[in-house]
Order: sequence, then C-alpha cells, then structure tokens
Amino acid sequence: MRTVQWNENRNEICLIDQRLLPGRLEIFTCKTLDEVVFAIHDMVVRGAPAIGATAAYGMALAACRSSATYVDQLHSELRQAAQALNNSRPTAVNLTWATRQMVLFMDQTAGSVSEITERLTVEAQRIADQDVATNKRMAEVGAELIQDGDTIIHHCNTGALAAVDWGTALGVIRLAHESGKRIHVLVDETRPRLQGARLTAWELEQLNISYEIITDNAAGHFLRRHQADKVFFGADRVAANGDVANKVGSYMLALAAHANHVPVYSVFPTSTVDLSLDNGDQIPIEERPAAEILDLQFHGERVAPEKAKARNPAFDVTPNHLFTALVTEKGIIHQPLKDNLPRIVRGL
Amino acid sequence: MRTVQWNENRNEICLIDQRLLPGRLEIFTCKTLDEVVFAIHDMVVRGAPAIGATAAYGMALAACRSSATYVDQLHSELRQAAQALNNSRPTAVNLTWATRQMVLFMDQTAGSVSEITERLTVEAQRIADQDVATNKRMAEVGAELIQDGDTIIHHCNTGALAAVDWGTALGVIRLAHESGKRIHVLVDETRPRLQGARLTAWELEQLNISYEIITDNAAGHFLRRHQADKVFFGADRVAANGDVANKVGSYMLALAAHANHVPVYSVFPTSTVDLSLDNGDQIPIEERPAAEILDLQFHGERVAPEKAKARNPAFDVTPNHLFTALVTEKGIIHQPLKDNLPRIVRGL
Repeated sequence: MRTVQWNENRNEICLIDQRLLPGRLEIFTCKTLDEVVFAIHDMVVRGAPAIGATAAYGMALAACRSSATYVDQLHSELRQAAQALNNSRPTAVNLTWATRQMVLFMDQTAGSVSEITERLTVEAQRIADQDVATNKRMAEVGAELIQDGDTIIHHCNTGALAAVDWGTALGVIRLAHESGKRIHVLVDETRPRLQGARLTAWELEQLNISYEIITDNAAGHFLRRHQADKVFFGADRVAANGDVANKVGSYMLALAAHANHVPVYSVFPTSTVDLSLDNGDQIPIEERPAAEILDLQFHGERVAPEKAKARNPAFDVTPNHLFTALVTEKGIIHQPLKDNLPRIVRGL
Repeated sequence: MRTVQWNENRNEICLIDQRLLPGRLEIFTCKTLDEVVFAIHDMVVRGAPAIGATAAYGMALAACRSSATYVDQLHSELRQAAQALNNSRPTAVNLTWATRQMVLFMDQTAGSVSEITERLTVEAQRIADQDVATNKRMAEVGAELIQDGDTIIHHCNTGALAAVDWGTALGVIRLAHESGKRIHVLVDETRPRLQGARLTAWELEQLNISYEIITDNAAGHFLRRHQADKVFFGADRVAANGDVANKVGSYMLALAAHANHVPVYSVFPTSTVDLSLDNGDQIPIEERPAAEILDLQFHGERVAPEKAKARNPAFDVTPNHLFTALVTEKGIIHQPLKDNLPRIVRGL
C-alpha cells in the first residue's frame, strides 16, 4: 500500500502510522479534518511530500464531510480547512503548496457542491499520483550520481514513507540499487525522532539494501576517515538561492562532508522550492515539544533528570554553497544554485 | 564524595556508578583487578582523568591483593596488571599515562613487598589528589575565556564525574559561574551513551547552573542563528600538533562553531597529551558494541529493526586548526598549536 492513500468507498484517508514503525505496521484512518491536522502535527505522517499529499486529501475530506448547501459556503469552509492544515506544521512548504493547489482548483471549478466535492477528490488523487511520478523521475535523474561500490551517508527518512510512494533521496538510492550498483548506506539515526534508525533502516531492510545505523555524531568520523563517498538527504523547504531547510542535523552533516571533499546532494520535488524567500534565514523553523528529547529511555530508565528542560528545533538550514548539486524532477541543478535553481524551477 | 575514591580501611576502590545516573546514585566497589578492568571497560567510570586515577588505584589494588612473596614477583604481577588496565579502553591516554607512572614509581622504590605496596597506595592517592589540583588550576586558567551572559555549547560530560573531582571543561564553566558570571549551557545529549543528557545535566542541576538539553544535531542550528557564544569540550588524547581525540561528535560541533566564527576550546590536563603521536590520525579510535546504539527505547519500544547492525566509533578527531585555543593547567595554548603545544607541555 501507499504511505498516504484515499479510501474511495468510505471517503477516508489511510496513513501508515509512522510513530509505530518498525515495531508495528498499523493504519491510522482519518475520517475528519481534525484527525488529518492531528496526524500531520503528531507525525503519524511525516516527510515533506507525504505531508503535501495528505493535505491535498485533507481538503477533499473536508469537502466530503461538509454540510454546505451553497457553493459559497463550501468555498468558505475549505479556505478555513486550508488554514487549519497550513498551521499544523510550519516548515515544510509542500503543505501550503498542496492546499493552495486545491484552493486554486476549487476556485476554477464550476458546478454544484457535490460536483465540486467530487472533482476535488479526483484532484487530490491526481496530486498524489503526480507525487509518485515525480519521485520516480527524481530517482532516474539522481541515480547517475551514484557509483558502483559507493558508501552513502543518509540523514532522516526520505523513502517511500516520506512520500506517497518511492521517496526522494532514498528513491535515488533505491533505483541505483535496483540497477545493479552495490551500495552501502550509513544510516544517521536522526535524533530526536529517530526517523533514520526507525524508518530508513526498516525501508532498507525491505529493499534488501546493505546498511548500518550510526549515531548522527559519528558521520564526521567516517567522512574524515574517507569511509563515505556521498551524502544524500531530502528537503522540507528550499529558498530561491538554494539554501535548504531539512531535518535538524543536515547542516552539520553537510559541513562535515564539505570539509572532507565528499559530495553533498539534496533531493526534492520542485514543489518544495519556495521562490518567495530569498534565502534560508527566512524559513520558519519549527520548535517541537521538549518531550521528544526528554522522554528517551535506555534499558527501561529515563535518561534525563526529571526537571530537565530542552530546546528542540526540528529543522536547520544548510547554506547553498555546501551542496555539490540539487536533484529535482526537472534535472540536476549545479552551482551556482542561486542562479540555476530559480531558472529551472520556473522552467526557463 | 569523589567520583573515584580509595577506601583505606578495606583497600578497595569506590566508584560512582555512572551507568545508573541520574536515576540512581550508587557506589560500585572494586575489590579485584578484574573488577577495575570491568568498571573501565563497561564505563562504570568514564572520562579521561577519572579513568587515569582509577587505573592508578587499580595498580595499588593489584599490589594489595598480590600474594607475591618476592619483590620480583610483585613487579612481574604489576606489569601484567598495567597491561590488563591499558587494554580496557584504547583511546584515552590518561590510562596508560597513569599505569606508566605507577610502574616507574615501583621501579624506583626499594623495600619489601609490603613496603612497596604501601608506597604504591600512597602514590596512587597522590596522583588522584594531583588530578583535583590540576583540574582546579585549569578552571582558573580557563575561566577568563568566559564572559558574563555567555551561552555555551558543551559536548559529553567533563565535570566532576569525568575526573576525580571538579572536572575539565565543566570545571571552567563552574568556576566562571561561581565567580558570578551568568552562564547558560546548551547541553549536547551526546549519543550514543548520552553522557550530556544523563551526567552533565545532572551535574549542572547540582551546581545550580542554567541549562537546556539539545540533540547533538541541533548545535549547528543554534550556532548558525548566533544563539551560542562559545563551544567547550574535553579531550581523551591530544596529539603533539594539537589534534584532539574526544567523544564522537566533537569534530562536527567544532566544524559548525568554526564555520560560524564561534570560539572552540578543549580543556584537558597535560597528562592527556601524547607527544609520541605527530597528529590525530595516529590516535586509535575505540569502536564500542552496536548495542549501545541499537538498544535505545522510546516509550518503552525498541527503536531499530530487530536485525539492524550498527557502527559505533566512540571518539573522533578534531583537527588543530578548528580550535581557538586549548586550556591546560600550564596555561592557555594559542595557535599555532603545533608549535605551542609541545613547547608548553615540555615546560619550555
């Protein structure tokens, strides 16, 4: 099944509950808009492309659940739904991209309340299908960057679980593997939510790709000892100049790779680019609950002192100069990113 | 009590069991050499200076437990004891420094088996007392580097628990705090053993110093956003050119600070310097069991897939050029470290 899936018979969204993997594979069903907002906020679903598709379906769900009898009423309710979804997480721009797409589509669609609702559902499905097609295209574009025998350091999770299917950076690795290249992945465990140790490790196991988990701290050691050939990660929002907001820790990883002349790639669909922002300093960085850090246990006992406080920024910004190239469905974008990224995103 | 303490009545070593903090404060008693080797290897006691003192006491303990009747026999047994202690952990040089000191002392000591044993016990006590005095001196030397209002990022644990008492980098922070400077510490949790979240947080709480725990991944974000003024950590072995082996993650932290023009300091006694090594690439880096990474639980459930493997280097090397200065009991050592460090260590 897909990570994010629409149940046509019941008009519900089915999500793989990523909080429970790898221990349990369970489906979280969203029957209401509130449940969709909760699922995004609590990271039942995570990964910028997956959040985008979930938000698109969330708009369709809001339409299906609406008791509006007039079109104006439906429009008004869906604009509110878009706002609620946009507020559920601040950093990934795919969320606002998807709700904006749906609102634009709604505004351009004539018909009765039920006709518009029907067409919004089809449009959300189209956005989800397009995400899969875009991911596959990125994988084809990016796979040439991987050589037979490469050891790749990967941060967070960017596989099928981070998208509707297939994935971004991990999709590139998967296609290179499936084309016969021997690859070994050093999986950053990715504190605090441990998406690497939980999700990327699980996905690599399903795909039969060789991997070892490392602490985020250890990446620098392997890079300095020339035991890693490439660094790959995804993106949650990319500014016009090519600065990349991604899971916290990406910046330090990119610095360590750059300092040791190891290529660094970020892989994302162009829907992740926010051309309204000149640079990464303008990207809002979500601070998540301290409990994500403090609730950690080791051998059954809490690690931190009872009264401890914590700061928990969920993302950081990697400045454009640290990247060797960026990978999108529209091609590989080389330096200078500040010139090439806007041009290619705009299709010029 | 001290982190490492000799019980004169029973000829035993009493260690604060650092595997149990902050949940429980318990004493681990070493009655035999094997128990000392276990305590170092399993990190009941950790921190380069604390390991050094424990090894010195371990030599005294081996002498006390010896059934040797001839001096030659005692000498032979203690050389074997030194070897066993040296093999318990490979990276921190304070361990071999302490056993070598004890063997040298033994070789220079005339008398009967019981007289030599008595004098070895006194010598181990002297080494431990000297460690405390050296730590206090380092704190005085280093405290001038800290300004009122500083926010300091600190990696691993370098407080009283990492030494016999007082500590290295955290000793500097403590003295600055006690002299009235307002300090806030961002405590790297320090995966995999979480010495920051466990031990440094606990010590800062005892000392009433303001702190927040952060993931190791988040340091780069705070450095880039100018929310940290200094970076401080300790050292496990320092090469002649000033390259510093320290807890894994120190290197990436130093890179991120350096890239953002934030000063980076390593604090250590000169017994941590290994002048026999030209540079840090020659320092052996301990790889510890994968279980330290894989046994992690969150909300009671194991994080990694059952079959997952892991790589677990316990240290990394920070190259000399990333340091603003090094702090020792013999003074602050400025750049160029490769010239100044050997000169100052040799007392020239």
